[in-house]
Amino acid sequence: MTDYRKLVRRPDIDLIDITSANNMHAEMAIAAARAGKHVFCEKPLAMDLAEARKMVKAVEDAGVKHAICFNYRGAPAVALGKQIIAEGRIGQIFHWRGQYLQDWIVDPKFPLVWRLQKEVAGSGAHGDLIAHLIDTAHFLVGDIAEVVGDMRTFIKERPVMKATAGGLAAKAAKGKGKVTVDDASVFLARFKNGAVGTFEATRFAPGHKNYNFFEINGSKGSLRFCFERMNELEFYDRGDPSHLQGFRVIQATESTHPYVAAWWPPGHIIGYEHTFIHTIYNVANAIARNKMPSPNFYDGLKCQAVLEAAASSVKSGTWEKVRV
Amino acid sequence: MTDYRKLVRRPDIDLIDITSANNMHAEMAIAAARAGKHVFCEKPLAMDLAEARKMVKAVEDAGVKHAICFNYRGAPAVALGKQIIAEGRIGQIFHWRGQYLQDWIVDPKFPLVWRLQKEVAGSGAHGDLIAHLIDTAHFLVGDIAEVVGDMRTFIKERPVMKATAGGLAAKAAKGKGKVTVDDASVFLARFKNGAVGTFEATRFAPGHKNYNFFEINGSKGSLRFCFERMNELEFYDRGDPSHLQGFRVIQATESTHPYVAAWWPPGHIIGYEHTFIHTIYNVANAIARNKMPSPNFYDGLKCQAVLEAAASSVKSGTWEKVRV
Amino acid sequence: MTDYRKLVRRPDIDLIDITSANNMHAEMAIAAARAGKHVFCEKPLAMDLAEARKMVKAVEDAGVKHAICFNYRGAPAVALGKQIIAEGRIGQIFHWRGQYLQDWIVDPKFPLVWRLQKEVAGSGAHGDLIAHLIDTAHFLVGDIAEVVGDMRTFIKERPVMKATAGGLAAKAAKGKGKVTVDDASVFLARFKNGAVGTFEATRFAPGHKNYNFFEINGSKGSLRFCFERMNELEFYDRGDPSHLQGFRVIQATESTHPYVAAWWPPGHIIGYEHTFIHTIYNVANAIARNKMPSPNFYDGLKCQAVLEAAASSVKSGTWEKVRV
Amino acid sequence: MTDYRKLVRRPDIDLIDITSANNMHAEMAIAAARAGKHVFCEKPLAMDLAEARKMVKAVEDAGVKHAICFNYRGAPAVALGKQIIAEGRIGQIFHWRGQYLQDWIVDPKFPLVWRLQKEVAGSGAHGDLIAHLIDTAHFLVGDIAEVVGDMRTFIKERPVMKATAGGLAAKAAKGKGKVTVDDASVFLARFKNGAVGTFEATRFAPGHKNYNFFEINGSKGSLRFCFERMNELEFYDRGDPSHLQGFRVIQATESTHPYVAAWWPPGHIIGYEHTFIHTIYNVANAIARNKMPSPNFYDGLKCQAVLEAAASSVKSGTWEKVRV
Repeated sequence: MTDYRKLVRRPDIDLIDITSANNMHAEMAIAAARAGKHVFCEKPLAMDLAEARKMVKAVEDAGVKHAICFNYRGAPAVALGKQIIAEGRIGQIFHWRGQYLQDWIVDPKFPLVWRLQKEVAGSGAHGDLIAHLIDTAHFLVGDIAEVVGDMRTFIKERPVMKATAGGLAAKAAKGKGKVTVDDASVFLARFKNGAVGTFEATRFAPGHKNYNFFEINGSKGSLRFCFERMNELEFYDRGDPSHLQGFRVIQATESTHPYVAAWWPPGHIIGYEHTFIHTIYNVANAIARNKMPSPNFYDGLKCQAVLEAAASSVKSGTWEKVRV
Repeated sequence: MTDYRKLVRRPDIDLIDITSANNMHAEMAIAAARAGKHVFCEKPLAMDLAEARKMVKAVEDAGVKHAICFNYRGAPAVALGKQIIAEGRIGQIFHWRGQYLQDWIVDPKFPLVWRLQKEVAGSGAHGDLIAHLIDTAHFLVGDIAEVVGDMRTFIKERPVMKATAGGLAAKAAKGKGKVTVDDASVFLARFKNGAVGTFEATRFAPGHKNYNFFEINGSKGSLRFCFERMNELEFYDRGDPSHLQGFRVIQATESTHPYVAAWWPPGHIIGYEHTFIHTIYNVANAIARNKMPSPNFYDGLKCQAVLEAAASSVKSGTWEKVRV
Repeated sequence: MTDYRKLVRRPDIDLIDITSANNMHAEMAIAAARAGKHVFCEKPLAMDLAEARKMVKAVEDAGVKHAICFNYRGAPAVALGKQIIAEGRIGQIFHWRGQYLQDWIVDPKFPLVWRLQKEVAGSGAHGDLIAHLIDTAHFLVGDIAEVVGDMRTFIKERPVMKATAGGLAAKAAKGKGKVTVDDASVFLARFKNGAVGTFEATRFAPGHKNYNFFEINGSKGSLRFCFERMNELEFYDRGDPSHLQGFRVIQATESTHPYVAAWWPPGHIIGYEHTFIHTIYNVANAIARNKMPSPNFYDGLKCQAVLEAAASSVKSGTWEKVRV
Repeated sequence: MTDYRKLVRRPDIDLIDITSANNMHAEMAIAAARAGKHVFCEKPLAMDLAEARKMVKAVEDAGVKHAICFNYRGAPAVALGKQIIAEGRIGQIFHWRGQYLQDWIVDPKFPLVWRLQKEVAGSGAHGDLIAHLIDTAHFLVGDIAEVVGDMRTFIKERPVMKATAGGLAAKAAKGKGKVTVDDASVFLARFKNGAVGTFEATRFAPGHKNYNFFEINGSKGSLRFCFERMNELEFYDRGDPSHLQGFRVIQATESTHPYVAAWWPPGHIIGYEHTFIHTIYNVANAIARNKMPSPNFYDGLKCQAVLEAAASSVKSGTWEKVRV
């Protein structure tokens, strides 16, 4: 069955998981909701804020459960960070520092894939990578009040690929086409709670493959995380005796850590796919208990609002308020 | 079906995978071989060298394929290390430095589980952890000629557990029982090719969860690996320009790295279970092509010979030759 | 001799080194220049851009040599970074990521020292820490065209200290006084060469003591440096064979590295004071050869212009051009 | 004055500092002691144990103060390790793991310098590097009861240099000469307190410049140190809450850390020479107060005894008791 319109009407399906290109999210999610299905959608929720609002309205109108795949919340080390903050060990948060660095399109010969085309992807590093950072910041720090940012497309034209069955390589390039999304996106943020935030995402940082990094500094301590070492969380505790203070590298592989009890012995790490398993576990659990999953479309909407404010600020050249 | 003797006679089974406690390996493997089944056995191959020899004879007599689960060869970073050595980038090897550090039984209240009982486990850190180091050394450096070692049981008695359904905690301890295996094992090794080796394994190293570490130093460069960051390999190349030399932290997550093309994009790491998937992939592939898998019982036997020489040297107090 | 006006007239002195609080730099430097002395001044050059311009005019009018103590250029690893860029190994620069993180005033009981008073210090983290980042960015990346930033004073009042002989502790606090400088400063930058920059400095990042960090990403490779490990430079080379690429941790302690030949054997590190020794070595060498030292007042002026543009942007809420 | 015999008789000198090649230590130290001077000697104390004993007798007979330059005790991070152990934070020590790795003679063209000649140096990596490890182990863990070891000379002949004024390069090599010391030395140790030790030193480990490393594992925690990052100490505390345990990277640059109050602000690191400054500070302080410095000739003697036992074990092929 390759027609989603038929799929969403199947009576033996309760939950629709949308993992298509970004420009199909709204259409599919709305159709699924209208068919009475719970909806689980990839991030970013939508192509823009208006679309996101429509999606939220659709799931609200239908009364279905909804969820969004901000899968990095499902890394045990990130969930542990949440727990440490909830335990009051970081105190008042002063700083959020988020970076999502990759390098897969540094080569000018890399072809014009769908992720580099605005009409399919909506945006580049901004919606693909910054969206993750924003959600993690929402999860761990709180809501963002206003932002000012910049974007850059370093390589403005790339080889056009002949359609192949899934392959990325431009085997038979037919001239060049225009890159219509950002290669890099940066912005400053003012959180509602007074914290100062910096956000940066790029696909032009050689040596970084999936460097989804954040650091949080608070009055009592700090947290650091990088997805390339996703089983580790660094924690600095100002409450430690003065001569013993230092960033601790916590291996988040103990059965006392979130999600880990289901997996391997300490020090035997898990990988990327487990972030999805944990996310789906949460979604399935919530739906089974008739609860709203978290994160859900409201989180997707809030993320979209920040994305949009940041994009607007690039045009206006000044701070833009985040309007959900 | 819980009786392995029936299982090995089932006509619809080609390959028997033995993951029982160490004292059942020989019996099961020999039964499987005699029933004409290919055999895939957990490490260490046997309780002792004599047993290992019987197992090798059984699979040879039966003409079946055999394999042993030295799963750490299946980590892409370890396989990349092998490739780098094969490419001649390390040169003549001077040093092997292998450490396998854990800390799960530091607490004296930790109970007397089967891994701490000689009649079931054969040995402690020695057979459980050193066995892995020996195999990796065989894989990357070569054969070992002689060894001299030491072992230690730091905590000599532990709480006895009442049998529970799989639980480790000594919920209803009935007094104390004797620990009959080593908590730690160390030895020096002379490789046949002239390299100097140090081996150390312990379950008494707080902070190390599954620190399966090796370093190799050669005339042209060095390699370092630690399983807790199993997606990374460190490589030092003396051929780099003098002012640019440094250990490179290679993220072994590129599609050009061994095994990786089947998995995630660069920087999206894999975990512990993948080492088994790759190992089984190799076993299945070899059998499907009527070839002998690698590593196999000969590797298990060779490993057992080193384990036995090291154990002997603890008793004799002097260097012992490795006799396969 | 405690009166600088007398000091600058002494005939046996050729060079005046100004290390007073920031609000005395201009007055002293201008007096020294008028007395025909070469001038070596601490950073930031001045309290504001207008003052910096006067200082430049004074040294130009007097025809004396001038230098500024951006001492981090004197770290061998930073100088090595410059060399690597000059060798073309980084290529076209896409990103500058500069952070200068400290934590010495996180405690609200920390007293109102001169560095927290605008009339003496000019600014807080901005002039003290960001100034260093700007200079390193100028040194390694190039000139900055425009910026937009934000500043924050997290703790607005602090205990007033009774004057003591050099001590920082507020032994006899007499009520509270107002903090009149920034605790943290962040800005985005557009370099003239098209690179995107992020700058952040704070004194509120627990666990960071003198985390003067930068990363540069270019079309051919990347560089990373952190002063807390000031003898190391990380370098990623896209020119390495694909399966061997990784960030190299270069120990900049080889005699082939800048400044190092005068010091210890490889791996025997140097410390903070050496950055000053190398800086002074450069100043003395230049003057002895009748050449203008580098960095000098022009670099100080350029840095001041960026500081001022960033400060202006905080007020205007929009991008501000850097006007030297 | 280039004749030490005259020097030791000068009435205006109280303390003789011996930094000559190893084969002159005994002669000079004994002469100094007999002249009534306090003696401060480089390590290793002597060419062999017999010589060391004579030196101890000479200083005892003369009643002078004596000290030995095990300068690594003077690294703040090492002294902090001592303090942490003294505070009971490591508990009963199970493991010592000491490695001193360098790579300066991997190149076969590196010439036959004095350090490679037994009659001048006494031994190679053994006396030069292992001596440091042994002293740190004595300092932090305790006395060693018995050892078994191995040594290797990987490159047996090297170019002979024509004498030049201090240069190392074999500019005018005159054929080859025999290397008469070890390139690498390894041994296992049994500490008197039951701890298991491994020691390794080599000059054939590419990528390691001055990797003077140790790790200590105890019932309550662990410590790690590497001289290449000499301002850092890693500490793992089993007393931390279970979900927060991790190796802390302590920057030993706080004024509350040993020796640091005299130096720079936090995070502004010190270098190699400071280990000597601290050592000399201790020597001078002790002598000024008419106390015996620590470490002193007894520590040198004890170190020599372990060196000798390890060397003997290489010949005997079995465990050798350490006899002071």
